Amino acid sequence: MKKGQSLYKKAKSIIPGGTMLLSKRPEMHLPEQWPSYFDTAKGISVKDLDGNEYKDMYIMGIGTNTLGYGNSHVDEAVSSVVRKGNMSTFNCPEEVELAEKLIELHPWGDMVRFARSGGEANSIAVRIGRAASGRDKVAICGYHGWHDWYISTNLGDNAGLDGHLLPGLEPAGVPRSLKGTTIPFTYNDLEEITQIVKSNSDLGVIKMEVTRNMGPKDGYLEGIRKLCDEHNIVLIFDECTSGFRETYGGIHLKYGVEPDMCMFGKALGNGYAITAVLGKREIMEAAQKTFISSTFWTERIGPAAAVATLEEMKRIKSWEIITAQGEKIQEGWKQLAIENDLDIQCAGIPALSTYSIESENWLKYKTFITQEMLKKGWLAGSSVYVCIDHTDSVIENYLNELSPIFKTINDFEKSHRDISELLEGPISHGGFKRLN
Amino acid sequence: MKKGQSLYKKAKSIIPGGTMLLSKRPEMHLPEQWPSYFDTAKGISVKDLDGNEYKDMYIMGIGTNTLGYGNSHVDEAVSSVVRKGNMSTFNCPEEVELAEKLIELHPWGDMVRFARSGGEANSIAVRIGRAASGRDKVAICGYHGWHDWYISTNLGDNAGLDGHLLPGLEPAGVPRSLKGTTIPFTYNDLEEITQIVKSNSDLGVIKMEVTRNMGPKDGYLEGIRKLCDEHNIVLIFDECTSGFRETYGGIHLKYGVEPDMCMFGKALGNGYAITAVLGKREIMEAAQKTFISSTFWTERIGPAAAVATLEEMKRIKSWEIITAQGEKIQEGWKQLAIENDLDIQCAGIPALSTYSIESENWLKYKTFITQEMLKKGWLAGSSVYVCIDHTDSVIENYLNELSPIFKTINDFEKSHRDISELLEGPISHGGFKRLN
Repeated sequence: MKKGQSLYKKAKSIIPGGTMLLSKRPEMHLPEQWPSYFDTAKGISVKDLDGNEYKDMYIMGIGTNTLGYGNSHVDEAVSSVVRKGNMSTFNCPEEVELAEKLIELHPWGDMVRFARSGGEANSIAVRIGRAASGRDKVAICGYHGWHDWYISTNLGDNAGLDGHLLPGLEPAGVPRSLKGTTIPFTYNDLEEITQIVKSNSDLGVIKMEVTRNMGPKDGYLEGIRKLCDEHNIVLIFDECTSGFRETYGGIHLKYGVEPDMCMFGKALGNGYAITAVLGKREIMEAAQKTFISSTFWTERIGPAAAVATLEEMKRIKSWEIITAQGEKIQEGWKQLAIENDLDIQCAGIPALSTYSIESENWLKYKTFITQEMLKKGWLAGSSVYVCIDHTDSVIENYLNELSPIFKTINDFEKSHRDISELLEGPISHGGFKRLN
Repeated sequence: MKKGQSLYKKAKSIIPGGTMLLSKRPEMHLPEQWPSYFDTAKGISVKDLDGNEYKDMYIMGIGTNTLGYGNSHVDEAVSSVVRKGNMSTFNCPEEVELAEKLIELHPWGDMVRFARSGGEANSIAVRIGRAASGRDKVAICGYHGWHDWYISTNLGDNAGLDGHLLPGLEPAGVPRSLKGTTIPFTYNDLEEITQIVKSNSDLGVIKMEVTRNMGPKDGYLEGIRKLCDEHNIVLIFDECTSGFRETYGGIHLKYGVEPDMCMFGKALGNGYAITAVLGKREIMEAAQKTFISSTFWTERIGPAAAVATLEEMKRIKSWEIITAQGEKIQEGWKQLAIENDLDIQCAGIPALSTYSIESENWLKYKTFITQEMLKKGWLAGSSVYVCIDHTDSVIENYLNELSPIFKTINDFEKSHRDISELLEGPISHGGFKRLN
């Protein structure tokens, strides 16, 4: 057994779920064969525990590293923190600098709080939104973490989060008294959220992702904004995933609709843990009416990495690069599908591109793609979270390697043969359907 | 105005509360005079933004750095992570190594989950405890973070957390439907918690700090353990603060009472963000019935720093050093009080030593101490979170500098003069009464 699978076997016996993130469970990618652990990561190159090197045309740390792994400008800032000290009885000045930068990029915002995970940032935003509005109910559209306020959506009929998270997700351990406090709504359906607002006078917060697998219909975001204004509802855009991928800041800047608060995470520190909650002064000051405080939110690496990441993003306009490269990747998939007579669906903003082949056997085919690409030295599945090191030649090489695999899939699909005969392990688990 | 105060003034206009942690607000220490921000921190030496250097005989990053700031063994492990890569699509092997080490130190435990803040670790533990017991109510004794489940204790009469957290803390933004789900109990009162258990059949979890300002009475922890066994309640020890200060692991190891779960934080990574939830297999596996997942829990610095911290702690038996030095500090305070005819109360485990002088003017005296010690180049208040760099000579120098300040306090106290005339700024804010 390879070292990574051997270590993962041990991990499953001492860590519930085996990993800290559902999307990094080997079973989500290639059960029993995924290398699972890394020794080094630089650019798009990842080396596993056996010394095998792969090019990451896949989730790039689940979207954390738009500047590639081990970006030298960001890493130098972190190394400087290690030399100067990560923690002390005083605060780090970098958090003030980072707050200023985020406000400068989003002129509608006035104040910022920081955390170190997206779930925390979401909980801070909801706490402040509820405190500011004085009302408890929250309407949500999208993925917003693991905390009680969010997972409580599934209390009762166990189906509330269908289409938002894992269908059928069990909300075990979430207090049942929260039932009904979080109400899901459907993206791009203005009528539905309008009805929810009208029939819930105690709704204080609307929290949503700005784009899902598709962008907003004309007038949809403007309609939500108007609805919130009319009913004194705090509008929160969750930009933990979408931020810094199409604009230098939140993707809402592209659509010209301003929230009352928004969160950033993932790409903000290029792989170092830092998340942010930005908001208007009159909303954010409600944080003073409650208690939001944590020791490790004062560590220095997070804000220092984020300041350096923003500098480097600005210098090279990384959001333009990853959007252009993402468009090429989607175009390449479509071209390969045409050449191999496959029916393909591409989705997501270009920098978070995903595809699927129309077939009841798609999950098997996806597993086959991951298996075959891994043999060729690529981490690959049905999505690419694009970084600046996904150059034209990398994309060309990737598509060249993918082409014969698409051909094999077409052969099996057209001849109604079961591709299981080519699979060397179990089929990958059905994914985290956040973009559906 | 000095750079630190100037920056803090800016911070308060763009960060609600000015800092990420209540205990690092300058007003908690020396309003309008506290240096507030650091440039470098090494050992116990902290340099502010104006280049002034101070020796930290105070909260040492609020208890995060028992091995001193910038411990070379830990920092080398972190630097190695920066060189090799902090994040990738794969997981980091260090998290499995850290899980193994924590289990080895606590033979009653079988499985571990990690987070990056104490509040998160607390929320994970409560989620798993509720999922495992199938019951929603939680009884608490101590400080357990900022999340809804905990702050909900104050819903209703706004007094539930008195003696646990900030008296009168407003739970704004916490859903009112959580009212009654978390019940506070008094430390060392076995009768009270027994009655709470008997009158709440839906109580599934008891979460507590193992020691408070005092240790457990004979039979108290054993009584709690028995109560939990009889009623199938999950017993959780919150060791975020107490861990690795008197033993090589949780302080419960000293008392010989085993919980079903416990959390570690603060000292675990010597200033780098890492927290852990350790538990028995049959409890921890309930994590699989719910959703607990976060991108930044997969970053590598946290577990790598913790593994190195545990190695260094073990090598030098740091818990013995900081306990011995803490005892000397408490002894020194008492001696100074005798010499200056002051009535002093010392409290806390030696490694988290605190004192107060019996006087209605104590908060003014505390402010005066901080002000005068700062002028002499010391960070000092009414507590010391001890680290291995608090050597005998450091303690001796510190006590020598403190002695004339105690004398002045005695002069003012005995002559009924108001020490405000010597204060160069406002009185410090009444603190975070977690040890009361």
